[in-house]
Formats: sequence, C-alpha cells, structure tokens
Amino acid sequence: MDADTLKTLLEHIRDGRMEVEEGIRLLKDLPYMDIGHAKIDTHRELRVGYPEVIYCPGKTAEQVKAIFQAMMERGSNILATRAGEDLYAEIRGICPDAVYHREAKAVTLKKREMEASEGYIACITAGTSDIPVAEEAAVTAELFGNRVERIYDAGVAGIHRLFHNLDLIKGARVNIVVAGMDGALPSVIGGLVDKPVIAVPTSVGYGASFHGLSALLSMLNSCANGVCVVNIDNGYGAGYAAGVINRLR
Amino acid sequence: MDADTLKTLLEHIRDGRMEVEEGIRLLKDLPYMDIGHAKIDTHRELRVGYPEVIYCPGKTAEQVKAIFQAMMERGSNILATRAGEDLYAEIRGICPDAVYHREAKAVTLKKREMEASEGYIACITAGTSDIPVAEEAAVTAELFGNRVERIYDAGVAGIHRLFHNLDLIKGARVNIVVAGMDGALPSVIGGLVDKPVIAVPTSVGYGASFHGLSALLSMLNSCANGVCVVNIDNGYGAGYAAGVINRLR
Amino acid sequence: MDADTLKTLLEHIRDGRMEVEEGIRLLKDLPYMDIGHAKIDTHRELRVGYPEVIYCPGKTAEQVKAIFQAMMERGSNILATRAGEDLYAEIRGICPDAVYHREAKAVTLKKREMEASEGYIACITAGTSDIPVAEEAAVTAELFGNRVERIYDAGVAGIHRLFHNLDLIKGARVNIVVAGMDGALPSVIGGLVDKPVIAVPTSVGYGASFHGLSALLSMLNSCANGVCVVNIDNGYGAGYAAGVINRLR
Amino acid sequence: MDADTLKTLLEHIRDGRMEVEEGIRLLKDLPYMDIGHAKIDTHRELRVGYPEVIYCPGKTAEQVKAIFQAMMERGSNILATRAGEDLYAEIRGICPDAVYHREAKAVTLKKREMEASEGYIACITAGTSDIPVAEEAAVTAELFGNRVERIYDAGVAGIHRLFHNLDLIKGARVNIVVAGMDGALPSVIGGLVDKPVIAVPTSVGYGASFHGLSALLSMLNSCANGVCVVNIDNGYGAGYAAGVINRLR
Amino acid sequence: MDADTLKTLLEHIRDGRMEVEEGIRLLKDLPYMDIGHAKIDTHRELRVGYPEVIYCPGKTAEQVKAIFQAMMERGSNILATRAGEDLYAEIRGICPDAVYHREAKAVTLKKREMEASEGYIACITAGTSDIPVAEEAAVTAELFGNRVERIYDAGVAGIHRLFHNLDLIKGARVNIVVAGMDGALPSVIGGLVDKPVIAVPTSVGYGASFHGLSALLSMLNSCANGVCVVNIDNGYGAGYAAGVINRLR
Amino acid sequence: MDADTLKTLLEHIRDGRMEVEEGIRLLKDLPYMDIGHAKIDTHRELRVGYPEVIYCPGKTAEQVKAIFQAMMERGSNILATRAGEDLYAEIRGICPDAVYHREAKAVTLKKREMEASEGYIACITAGTSDIPVAEEAAVTAELFGNRVERIYDAGVAGIHRLFHNLDLIKGARVNIVVAGMDGALPSVIGGLVDKPVIAVPTSVGYGASFHGLSALLSMLNSCANGVCVVNIDNGYGAGYAAGVINRLR
Amino acid sequence: MDADTLKTLLEHIRDGRMEVEEGIRLLKDLPYMDIGHAKIDTHRELRVGYPEVIYCPGKTAEQVKAIFQAMMERGSNILATRAGEDLYAEIRGICPDAVYHREAKAVTLKKREMEASEGYIACITAGTSDIPVAEEAAVTAELFGNRVERIYDAGVAGIHRLFHNLDLIKGARVNIVVAGMDGALPSVIGGLVDKPVIAVPTSVGYGASFHGLSALLSMLNSCANGVCVVNIDNGYGAGYAAGVINRLR
Amino acid sequence: MDADTLKTLLEHIRDGRMEVEEGIRLLKDLPYMDIGHAKIDTHRELRVGYPEVIYCPGKTAEQVKAIFQAMMERGSNILATRAGEDLYAEIRGICPDAVYHREAKAVTLKKREMEASEGYIACITAGTSDIPVAEEAAVTAELFGNRVERIYDAGVAGIHRLFHNLDLIKGARVNIVVAGMDGALPSVIGGLVDKPVIAVPTSVGYGASFHGLSALLSMLNSCANGVCVVNIDNGYGAGYAAGVINRLR
Repeated sequence: MDADTLKTLLEHIRDGRMEVEEGIRLLKDLPYMDIGHAKIDTHRELRVGYPEVIYCPGKTAEQVKAIFQAMMERGSNILATRAGEDLYAEIRGICPDAVYHREAKAVTLKKREMEASEGYIACITAGTSDIPVAEEAAVTAELFGNRVERIYDAGVAGIHRLFHNLDLIKGARVNIVVAGMDGALPSVIGGLVDKPVIAVPTSVGYGASFHGLSALLSMLNSCANGVCVVNIDNGYGAGYAAGVINRLR
Repeated sequence: MDADTLKTLLEHIRDGRMEVEEGIRLLKDLPYMDIGHAKIDTHRELRVGYPEVIYCPGKTAEQVKAIFQAMMERGSNILATRAGEDLYAEIRGICPDAVYHREAKAVTLKKREMEASEGYIACITAGTSDIPVAEEAAVTAELFGNRVERIYDAGVAGIHRLFHNLDLIKGARVNIVVAGMDGALPSVIGGLVDKPVIAVPTSVGYGASFHGLSALLSMLNSCANGVCVVNIDNGYGAGYAAGVINRLR
Repeated sequence: MDADTLKTLLEHIRDGRMEVEEGIRLLKDLPYMDIGHAKIDTHRELRVGYPEVIYCPGKTAEQVKAIFQAMMERGSNILATRAGEDLYAEIRGICPDAVYHREAKAVTLKKREMEASEGYIACITAGTSDIPVAEEAAVTAELFGNRVERIYDAGVAGIHRLFHNLDLIKGARVNIVVAGMDGALPSVIGGLVDKPVIAVPTSVGYGASFHGLSALLSMLNSCANGVCVVNIDNGYGAGYAAGVINRLR
Repeated sequence: MDADTLKTLLEHIRDGRMEVEEGIRLLKDLPYMDIGHAKIDTHRELRVGYPEVIYCPGKTAEQVKAIFQAMMERGSNILATRAGEDLYAEIRGICPDAVYHREAKAVTLKKREMEASEGYIACITAGTSDIPVAEEAAVTAELFGNRVERIYDAGVAGIHRLFHNLDLIKGARVNIVVAGMDGALPSVIGGLVDKPVIAVPTSVGYGASFHGLSALLSMLNSCANGVCVVNIDNGYGAGYAAGVINRLR
Repeated sequence: MDADTLKTLLEHIRDGRMEVEEGIRLLKDLPYMDIGHAKIDTHRELRVGYPEVIYCPGKTAEQVKAIFQAMMERGSNILATRAGEDLYAEIRGICPDAVYHREAKAVTLKKREMEASEGYIACITAGTSDIPVAEEAAVTAELFGNRVERIYDAGVAGIHRLFHNLDLIKGARVNIVVAGMDGALPSVIGGLVDKPVIAVPTSVGYGASFHGLSALLSMLNSCANGVCVVNIDNGYGAGYAAGVINRLR
Repeated sequence: MDADTLKTLLEHIRDGRMEVEEGIRLLKDLPYMDIGHAKIDTHRELRVGYPEVIYCPGKTAEQVKAIFQAMMERGSNILATRAGEDLYAEIRGICPDAVYHREAKAVTLKKREMEASEGYIACITAGTSDIPVAEEAAVTAELFGNRVERIYDAGVAGIHRLFHNLDLIKGARVNIVVAGMDGALPSVIGGLVDKPVIAVPTSVGYGASFHGLSALLSMLNSCANGVCVVNIDNGYGAGYAAGVINRLR
Repeated sequence: MDADTLKTLLEHIRDGRMEVEEGIRLLKDLPYMDIGHAKIDTHRELRVGYPEVIYCPGKTAEQVKAIFQAMMERGSNILATRAGEDLYAEIRGICPDAVYHREAKAVTLKKREMEASEGYIACITAGTSDIPVAEEAAVTAELFGNRVERIYDAGVAGIHRLFHNLDLIKGARVNIVVAGMDGALPSVIGGLVDKPVIAVPTSVGYGASFHGLSALLSMLNSCANGVCVVNIDNGYGAGYAAGVINRLR
Repeated sequence: MDADTLKTLLEHIRDGRMEVEEGIRLLKDLPYMDIGHAKIDTHRELRVGYPEVIYCPGKTAEQVKAIFQAMMERGSNILATRAGEDLYAEIRGICPDAVYHREAKAVTLKKREMEASEGYIACITAGTSDIPVAEEAAVTAELFGNRVERIYDAGVAGIHRLFHNLDLIKGARVNIVVAGMDGALPSVIGGLVDKPVIAVPTSVGYGASFHGLSALLSMLNSCANGVCVVNIDNGYGAGYAAGVINRLR
C-alpha cells in the first residue's frame, strides 16, 4: 500500500466519508483471497502490473485447480508453470480455453491482451536440449505482451551460427540467453551487444555440470558486462524480468 | 539416571532394603525394551516428558509394526513420521484406532490426553507447497498437547498477506516458520515478534535451491534475532521443539 | 505497526484530534533514526523487547562510534559484538562506562537493569577452544537480564565430565550447547533433558571440519529432539534466542 | 563487426575504393590496442556504448598504469575497480585528475559527460557493512551518466525502515539491492515494485554465509519476480547492468 | 572463417567475380543447416576435421531423427551418444545401416573410412564397472580412424595386472585411463609412460564418491605429469581428444 | 611379488633349474585370470590373505556370474556385495550352495573355514535403519573367520541403551560403529574403550544429512581417539578392516 | 564406570564399608580435574590406556600451560600438538624437560616409558611436503611405546621407490600412509599388504585439492581393502589409532 | 622396469654373467637417490623422457636446496616451480647459473638443450591477470624444448581480439588456454581449431568464482571437443602435457 492510497484513505476517514472499522477492513482484507491452502495475491496485478503465477510442483491437482478457478473468476490472465500433461487435462476440465505449451510445460489462459511493447526480446539457446527452458521464458514474456524472437542452438562451439544471427540479437531490447554445460554463451553475447542480457543456466549436462551448477557459476562470473543471472532452469523468471525491462519507457 | 535416584538406590542397598544384584539389574535393565532390531527407549517419557517417536524410512514394515506393537502395549501415545499410505494400512491392521494424517504423512495413536498448554503455536508457511512439512510440525505439536494456529501461503513476495495475520502471529508463544526457495520469511517475522522463531527450511524449489540448502543457509544467516533452525523438511523436529518451549512455565 | 496502534491513530484522525499530514508523518518517521550510513531501529525495543545490537565487522570505527553515540543518547542498553581491543579503545573514548568482555570480544553498556528472569540458562562447551563463542552467548544473555551457568570443556570423549554436571544442566530452562569438530554434544544432552537445546556449531577444528560445517551438519541432523541450531560461531544469536525463551511466562 | 559495416566494406572493395590488403587490415587491426600484457578493447565503446573497465586485482601497478595511460590517450572515461589507496597514489602520479572513491575502492577519470538518463536508479543496502559494494555500483552507474538514489541500512529485520523509503524505491526505473547474510531484501522489494531488481549478494557475514554463498543462493531462489542476480560483491556489474537498463528508451 | 578464405573472398569481390550480396550470403549462410530446433554445424567437418556429434539426452526422438536425417543427406559419418535401445530402434527406422554399440550406448553410421592413424590408443579401465564409459571412448576413437587397444579391469588394488600389460600401455601414442572411486590409476600410469594420458573419471562408486567427484578431484590433482582430465563419464570427449592427439604428425 | 620370491626365482634361473622364458611367464602370467571384462586377482589370497570380492553394481548379471564361476573353479570362498534378490537367483542357478543374506544384500559361498580368531568384533548401530550396513560388515567379518557380536539401535539420544551394553563393547578387540544423521555414536564409544573403533557413516537421514555427508564429516572430526572412518554405507570395508585388525597377533 | 567397579562399590556400601555420601562423591568427583576453562580427564589413562592430549589451537598460552602444569603434577606422559615455537618456549618455562619436535610441531614430556610393542608401525609419505603430518603421527606413536619406521617421498608417480621399500612396508603390523593431492598411495599399498592401512590425507596441494578434500575423498573411495581414513592433516589421530592397533595382543 | 630389461637381466644371471645378489641390487637400488626427506627419481628421465621437477610449497629452503644440489650433480636440466624470490636467492647461492622467471615464479637451470620440436605451442590467456599461470606453462614447455607463442588478454568479452590472432592459434600443434572467472575461452577456441586444447582454469576472480571452481567446472563441461583440463592454476602441468603432445611424431 503506497503513500497516495494511504493519504486518500486517511482523508476519507477524517472527512467522515469512511468508518474507522471500514478503514481497517480495507487496509487488511482487500489485497488477497484466502482459499485455505493458498492466499491468492489479487492485489499484485495493481501493485506490480502482472497477475500472480501458479508454480505447480508440490501442489496437488486440487490445489492448482482451486487457485486457477479463483483467478478465473477475477478475470485475470493466468500462467501455470511446470505443469505436466495430466495436470493440464485436469485444468481443461474446469477451463476449456486453457492452452497447453508442451515444450514449455506451461498452461496459459489469456483473458485480455496486455499492451504490446514496441521492442522485442531475443531468446537464444546454446543447444537443442535447452529449448524447454527457453520456451518457458518465451511463453511467459509473450503472455505479458512482449514480442519474442527465438534463436535456438547457437552455442559457442560453432560460433558462426551465433554471428549469423547477430543482427537479430543486436536489434533486441533485451536478450535472454539460455545455456547448460559450460554456460559460455552469455559471455560472448554480452561482449557484443549494448543491451541487458539475462542469462539462464540450465541443468542440461552430466557429471561435473552438477545439475546446472557449472553453467550457473560460469554466468555469475561472466567477464562480459550487463549480464544478470536467474536460477537454474528458471525460464519463467527470465521471461518475466525481460518483460519488465522491455516495458520500461 | 540423575543424582537423586542414584542416592535413593544406594541408600536402599546400604539399608539392606535392596539386593546388590537387584541394584545392578535396575540400573541396567529398566530403561528400554529390546526387540532385537530396536531398543525402545521406554524410559524416555519419564526422562524428557515425551514418548519415543518412530521415524519410518529405512525400516521394514515388520520393524515398524513390531515397534508400534511394543509401544501400544505400554499405553504410550504414538507418533510415526514419514509413513506412506501403504505402511499406514499395515499399521491399521494391528491398531484400528491409528489415525493417518495424509498431508503430514504421519500416523498417530492418542491413548491419553497430554496436559494442554495455555498459549498457542503459530505455524506459518511461505507457500502452498510447504504445507506438508508444516502439517508434520502441527500434528506433532498437537499430539503433545499444544494448540496450533495455521497460517499458510504468506510469503514475503506479497508481504501484505503476512501483515494481515500479524496479530495472530504476534499472539503466539512460539512461531514455526516454514519456507523453501529463498527462505526469507523467518527474517521478516523475526524482526516483528518478541517470541522465539523456529525456522524450517524445505526442499521446495529447484535448481540452485539444491534441495533446501538455499533456504537452510538463508535461515542460518538470518539478520533477525531469536531465529533458530532445524533440518530441511524437519517438521517433526520443529513441532517438537516448539512444544517443549511452549510448555515452559 | 500493529492493529491497535493503527486503530487508535485512525480514530484520532477521524475525531479531528490529529491532522492527516501528521498521521502520515507518524506512520513513517517515528520508528528509526537515520544517520546516513545507518538507520538505527529505535522502535525495535518497543516492538521486540530488546534494543538493536551493533555487529561490528565491515563497519569503520567511525560508523560504530556514530551508532553507539546515537544509541547512548536514547538511553538504551548497548551491545557491540565482534569488537577487537582497538575498537573498544575508540568506543571508550566516547563512553568511558563501556565494558569490554575480552573472551567474548563484546562491548556492553548497561544503562538500566532488565527485569531478571527466574530460571537460568546453562551454557555448555565441548572444549576449551569453544569458550569465546560461549562467552559471547553468555554476555548477551546476561545483558538482557538472564542468569547464566557456565559448564566448559565437557565434551563427549570424556562423557563422565558431562554426567557430573547433569543436575546443573537438567535444572536449566534452556541449554546452550557450543561445540566444534564433530558437534556431537547437543545430541547427547538433547537425549537427557526435557528443555529446549540451542546448539551452536563453532569453527574450532581443522581439515574436514571445513570451518564449522561438520559441526553444523551434525547438529542439524541431531537424532535427539528439541535441538535447534544457529549459525556457526553465532554465540550472540544463541544467547539472544535463549533469553527470549527463558523470558516466556 | 555487424552486417552493415561488413557490407559497406565489401562494397568499397568491389568498387575499388579500398585495397584488399587494407580490407583485411581494417577487419583485423582496428578494434584494439595491444600493449603486450593487455589488448585494450578500444572498439568496445562503439560496440556496446561504454569504454572498457580496468579490474585491478592480479595486475601489477605497472600493468594498471600502462592500461590507464593508453586509455587516457584515447580520451575515454576511465573506471578502475578494486583499487587500493596505494594503487591510486601511483595512478595519480600519471593522471592528477583521477578521483578516488574510498568506500567504493574505485578510481575514475571523467573526460566527457555521458548523456544523462531521465529516470534514476535506487541503490539499497540491507546493512551498513554492505555499503562498499553499493558504492561500487553507484559510482559505476554515475560515471556512465545515471542518477543514483542511495538508501542504506534498510534490511528486513526492521522492515519499517524499508517502507519509509517505499516512494523513493517505487519511483526508480531500476533497483539495485545489496545484501549479505540471508539475502532476503530483494525478495521483499521484488514483491513491491513493478520495475527490474538487480540483486547483489555480498560476502558480509560469517560461518554458514560461506563468504556470500548464502545470500547468493537466497537471491537466485527469490520467490519474487523480476529479480536478477550478479556475482557476490559485484557492485560494478550491478551498476553497469542497471545503467544499461535505465538507458533503454 | 580463417584469413585465407576471407582474403580469397574479398579478392573475388574486388575482381567482380562475386557479387557483394553473394559475399554476404556466403559469409553468413554456408556454415550450418537450420532445422528449427537445431542448427547443424555442417562447416565443422572442414573447420576441425570431424563432423558434429549428436548428444541425445534432453532431445526428443523426433529431434534426434531429424538431425540424423539431415546429416545422412550430407553423407557424413555420424555418431549419436547416450542413446538408449529404444532410440536406436527409432533411428534404425530411418537408417537401417546404423550400428548400435550396446555397452557404449552409441549409434554410429560409417559412410566413409577416415584415414587410419599409424599409432594406437590404449584404453584402460580400473574396473569392470567402468567399461561402458571406456567403450564410448573406444567407439568414438575408432569411428574417427584410430586403432584402439582395450585393457579392462587393471586397477591399482592388484597392481600386477597393470604391470602385465605395461608393454601394451607404453607402446600407445595416447592413453585413455578410465576410473571411478579413488581415481588413482592415471597417477600410476602417468608415472610410467612418456606419452599423454587422458584421465576419465567415472561415476562408479557410492557414498563419498559423490557421483564421480572423488575420482575427478583425484585426477585433477594427479602428482604424475602429462595427465589431462575430461568430465565425469565423458568417454566421448576422451575418445575424441585422444584421436585428435593421435592424428598429429 | 616380494623379495624372497624374486630371489628364489632368480636362483632357479641361475642354477639352470628354470628357463628364462619360463621366468618371464611366471613373473607375468601367474597372478590373475583374464576373462575379458575382468582380470580376477587370483594372486590376492596369497598376497593379502583374503580372496577378491565381487562388488556387483555396474556389472551385468553375466559379468557377475562369469567372475563367480571362475572363482568357484579355484575353490575360493566367495563374497558378492550389493546384490539384489534377482541377481542372487541367477547366481544360485550356477551355484546352488550360495547363501543370500537379505539384510546385508550379500551372497556368500563358503568352501573352506577360515581359521577362527580368538577375540570378537562388536558391531554397533545407532538406529534400526542402519542395520543393513551393519549386516554387510558382520557378514563380511564372519566369512573371513571372525566372531561378531551385534548391538543394534543404541544411539546417543538414549545413551543408557549404550551403557547397558558397555561390557560387551569393552570386551571386543575391535568396534565397528555404524551411524547416520549426526554420526555422534563413534565419538562417545571412542571415549570409553581402549580398542580401535571403525566408524561407518550411513546415508540414513534426510535434508542436511546430504546422503551421509553429515555423519561422515562428524566421524572424521571425532574428538575421541582411535577412531578411523570408511566410506558412507561401506559395511564391507569396515568388516574387512576389522577382520584384518582382529587377526593381528 | 564399568559394571565390575559399580558392583564392588555397591557391595562396599551394602557392607557398610563405605558411606553413601562417599559413594556419590567417588562416582562423581574422581574422574577429572576442573581448572575452570578445562576439565582434565584424569580418569582417561585408566579407562582407555593413554593420558589425555592437549590440542593447542584456539587455546591461549595461559590455558595450555595450566593444563600442562596440572598433568605434570599427576606424573602423566604429556603430548601437546600443533604447538608453535613460541608456545613451546612458554611451556619450557614451566617444564625444562619438555621436548620440541620441530617438524611435527609437537611438545612431549616423557615421565615413564610405555611398554614397548613387539611389532612396528611403518609411516610412509607420498611426498616431502607431507612429512610434517607424518612426523606428528610418528612422534605420537613413539610416545605411546611403539617403534616406527619412516619411509618418506615414495609416491605413486615414481612407483619403484615404493617397491624398493616393500619388505619394510610388508613387515609392519600397521601402515600409516600420508598423502596429499591425488591421495593415491594408500590404494596401492592397500593392495599389497595384509595388514591394516591408516590413510591420512594432507592439505598439501592447491586448486582443486581444496585443502585436502581431494585426497580425503580419494582415500575414502579406495578400491583397496583394509584402508581406514582419519581427518585431513590428522597425524596425531593416525599415530594414536596405529598405536592402539599395534598394541593388540 | 620394462620387459626387455627384465629379460636381459635374467639372461645375464642365467649365463652367470651377473650374481643373484647383484641382480636384486640392480632391480632395487638403481632408480632413485635417497636424501632422507626426498627420494629423487633419477630413473624418471629415462622412463618418461623428462627429469623430475621440484614443487616448492611445503618444502623448507634446505630441502629444496638439497634436492636441487643432488640434481645438479647428475647434470639434469632443473625446474623448480612456485618459488618466491627469497627461495630463488637461496638457490642462487648454490647455483649461480639458475635463472628466475619472475612472473612464472619458476627457477630453471638449463644444462643441456632438449631437442627442439618442429611445431609450436600457442599459450593464450583470457585476461592480464591470468598471465602468471600462463608464464609457468610457457617456461615449462620451453625448458623441455618447445617453441611457445604467447597471446595474452584475448578473452571472449571482446572476441575480435581472439579472431585477430586466429591464424597464430590455428597454426599451433597444441593450444594452452588459460582463463579464470567464467572459463569460457577454451570452448570458443575448441570450436575453431582441429588440434588439442589444454584448458587451465585460474583462481582469478572473486565471489562465486570460488577460487577457480567456476572456471574449472566450465572447462570440464565445455561443449567444444578436444578440450582437456588440468588443475586450477596448474600452468606447469599444462606446459608439460602440451610438450609431451607436441613431441609426438
């Protein structure tokens, strides 16, 4: 609750236009919907510009559906991440319009078009195996009103594949760079562009990749500038952050 | 065996009221029941106020049942943790009164009511996925005679959900705070209350959460005061410790 | 800011007893004192019952002294932790009454006696080398009005030393158990008492102790109940938490 | 070298306006200045909009001075990070106009004003000990033409200090959030703003902070959205990335 | 694209033998084949002497087959690693000549014989359980034209087994040494031969082998000389590198 | 091959009693039997007193059976560890006398009685879940001619269970102490006995036990003396080492 | 306190030969001497056969001297480990007979000869830099009445140096094997002898040796049998354990 | 000792040309020189083609000098690594011809020219701070008869600096690539050349570089082929291995 809202509310009470008890209720009860196992942050869309997102792992199908239902009733755009096909089938039972993005393992429901941004986000992967994470990023960014250009399998071991797409990469307002194993791609791209780079390490690899640790450390230590990092396999977080940046005016 | 008991025992022997051999037997044989694969600490309830608890993983169903049976025969309240539904079915075969707590994955048998505490324990989770761990804590504390107030899905990313429940939180004698991922919730609560906070990291998360390591380290490094930590996913330990604290007079 | 205060404030505004602008100012400006490099949480003593504490590492002597000075002017009891002798000399320059606890590396200023608790805290170490951490705990607890009984060098390798002090240990309302290396002591004590145990791993050791990691993990995995853990070498945190628990009525 | 430049160059050769040998020379020799132990990327300012930066650790004073000298001769703005006072003294010997930022441990030389951005960057720390890292970020961002608002010592353990500055935080185009220990602050801020948050873990702390690992993991696992992370203590990287984002139009 | 090619291309344009647009196309479009989810580095065989290799994990069967198909059409030798029997069955559907190496879990298609090297590579394992990794190395090296001598189960715990094969080991131009657990074998061999040793740690072991970390660290710290290390279980990488070395003239 | 054997062999050659070629053959071919995927160290029983042992994981059933067969033909006692019931069924097909130890997951074949040792080995576990590892140790020691006394579920949280068995523990020539979680038991026992203690950490536990790392570190840092450690879950290694020690005269 | 002593004590009380109060005093006060910062385990020599040892790090010179003094007065043999030359100088001030072992960094005082063992202990290092740890082991074992044969710098990279000393190694009742870096030596020796091997990892090395972690893991995963491991650089522990084993009859 | 030598030796004994005792002496005493704290592997030059190298850390100046002296007397080329200037001064006292390589921290003595190789080794660093490690590699390779081309400060963040030197890189028989931080350079070079790449991670960096772990993991997970890795900061090992490869015919 920011300063302006607080001031208005206090003025209404001072002027007798609002009861004190009502003021307390408003300050406390408005911002979320409590369905027992979850407190849906309905105030979030006003506060930060995007609706809450459903992270599915660890939730039962009943819990996911209850949250989905509650959000549907409020008319929000909805994004559920890390959802298997079975879970999608259950969601479709209560919401036939829900769309499944198989590679991204995401379920979306688009109730209203977000205002489109002018620029676009480039979403680049080092390898084919990194695509699911990149798709989670792309689907997230697109749902929130961004245009996304996909450039897949352009890792540094065949660096001409990257250079071929350099114009597309340099034209983006934000770059999402997805890589596992050595995680070297963001360093190369970060040295070539003058825009922010969001690096997403993936758990692609084996042995001393330690489930993405190798790529994560590599990206955190990037000797290029303007490179920020999100969690391993966190396509959603990258897509969200890129959207927030792309939307800056 | 504490000093008073030892003194009495020695006096009985001195006064001829007890045989030396009997004294040795008492000092050695009373405190536990040996069923081969387990030595059930029957003395524990006298020593620390609570019966022993059955931690099920790594034990065969036969072993769990044999321990359960032996404790039933002594009339103890019983708690078996980390028990799947199959194991519960087996236990019910020898003890139809046993109750299964599905979310907590716990089996309880309540033979006698523990003396109820006056104050209550608040059990708070950051997210919906943390509920199973919180339920293990709550079921444990309740079995041992504590009142528990549950506040689920109140993480710091929508911090007004937390503030809405601040009275309930501040009113508790002990707070159990359960969180995965960034483990940030105990630090915020620790800064708001003047009561002990038991922080429980969970393995909820992925990638650089490293199965709860992230939340564990975060909680150990809490910049708030009065925060103590138990093992990752150790709802039982938190519920037990909170009960011990709540029972202090 | 809790519900009661908020309600009173809103009622004052409604009744015209307070200006709206004043209300905003109160809600925002009261709780801390801003001295540029630090925002001293003056509201904390009211909120959680204890004044803020100065953690010295990473602060310049000038910063520590400025914070100390500001707290002196408010008449708080003051505790500065991890302070070397040089820093103490500087503090004494502005506050001749400040006391230095050499082993604990703590500076205290006691302006008013805290209400003494009835019970006492037992502070136990496994070895002689763990004493500095235990002293930080003890000094903290004592400043905040607790009685502390010290039992040093009672580790499990000569377990009779522990048993000799069992009455003193069992009589405490809270036990602080400080150990490095194998960190085994809290497990043994936790199995003997019916009171909370706060385990403090120390960085005492070498090689595979990995600066306290060994003791930390050991304590987190204690097979005894009622054991909670704080950060490695965090005597202050243990003393604080023990005091909060000891003060419960 | 982007596509347009390449095309022009090829056309010049085709049209006989440029010799083949000259074309090769241009393609190869222009972009950097080789001084033996370093290849200064003089092309970088054109390519990504900012001059190269001198990271001092591991370089001899002679090497730093030689690089500094070479950049001076090209009229670049210069930033040298992690420079001790002794090194600064040596630099001042060849460049009396160089400015030393003591807390940031940075040396700057401003030869030309960068175009000022409209919005500002908020630079927030959890504690006083985090200020040196925050200053490195702020000095970097300011040198590259950004306005920076500093909000220091506003950690979650006294969360009202944060809320007091909420307007300033929400008004920023980008937030840099600097925290050690539990690293919880970015999660709270990320839940309150609709702008990108660049989280900087610091090595402030001890024991299980493992030199910043705790804060790093906590930030990577932030349950808030829009949070990106840079390396531990990497104030420079955060300041740079924030500047790149702030400059987006 | 190396200097000579660039020079020729520029000369052709200068001489009017090639259009500028054509020049750009060549510089950009030649080197790979884009099939959407993958950019097959067709230029690689010319650049580094070997065709690209298909790393199967994380790719769908459709993606693997599409890449396989595209490479078949170019007449390349093909190697697909970490392929289960099911995947092989699918590949055989489009390429009946594909051969499956069960122990190595590799699929190969040999379209043209690589020029045979004169010397041979010795491929040695410490134990029987290390054979699958060694076979991946051997199959890779053989496909690329090398002769391989296999010496399996010759670990240091029965060191005479190693000495028995010393002539065969000393006669090789390169040794691939594959070991899990203590990873001690490369150190012993490295002390006996005057040729390069490529050490391959395997994930064979349990407990404190930490999935190959033990062997990896042991090999990196080898007190013998001439020992280089590849990733855990990376038979392919070792076979490839050994082939590159063996082929040096 | 030790010095005496070498001398005799050389003398035989000098005296013409043995051909040079025969000498080479003996020096090289005697000590093991090569069955392709394995080199069975048949010389081992002479060299170190015990036959080789078959570690089953990572070997195919065919490989295990072939090694078993080869050892049977030489009349050795045989021990195969980490064998599931399916594998045992296959072994029984070629060797009906093979015995399966279900808890230990071990297969044994006893062809000749080892000379019995006079003293005995005590094999102690902290909990019931540690029994499988302890059984692997006990079965190993028994096959190699040692008497073993089992004391299970005697962990430090109910320390009187341990003291009850102190005579049995103190009477042993060697103690094997098996514990997971906090791994505290060897430190307590090490402080009570004057005989060697072999500590076996187990992977029993969860969360911050990190699959036995916690117990391993705890044991390595034991503040008691005479404690040596083997790998996590390495019952076999402990049983073997205890046998070697017990057999010393 | 074992069963026999307890029985005698109880019988004395029963027979009136001992007062009850005296019995309690005996049970509690005999076993250690309390000097405030330390509780010297004077009972230890009776219980486990060796006097307590002073581990110096983390203790002040005053504390070390007070413990030394108290042990002198009891006539014990004394061993103080990890003592620098300065500390030795202080000890010599109160005990001119104390001997300093410079390489081992140990101070010893021999008041009475321990009964000599018949066999000897071989103490072997991989390199010259491992000698200080080996000397700590050797000095410890010698003080406790063992003969020690030193074989230094016999690592696997020049394995003939090891074989040259094979008779001496095979003749020992126990082998202590000290190695850093790859820690490969115990595996080779373990495969050659039929006696127990105590492996001591050292922190010798750099980079991925991670202060001895590499050698530690290597030794824990030794594919040879009969190998037990102590903490990194723990020469004392190895010497003590070897002595306990060597003394077995 | 290889088969041919053994055969000859045995034949000499058979033919009476050599005494049995002499044969034993030869087999055992020839290969090294024992100076107490070190066994200098004098046989090594014959066995693997290069003399032994002195790794200085952990050795006293006296030990280093004694080894140096012993090697001088045999006329070997000598290399002492990780030697500070003080140590060099001591060495020069006994060997005025010894040369100090300041950046490499290496002392060399060249008694005889090694046969020069035809090809050359390229030694490339990512940054200026990596030069000391690269120099250790270069000095090692040069002492052993290789020509080395140095290309310093050519990291991927300004990738044109790399391409500029591509001809020099592609012309080498072996590439040594030295990088800290993200360790991305070997992946890029590995994708461009058809020769072996020896990757050397350095401890250059801070925070999440974890003293070179980041670069090490990155290199082990390189998605390019033909990349082998040595220990962190192990310039010597890389130079040695590169020389062994370069010398292959």
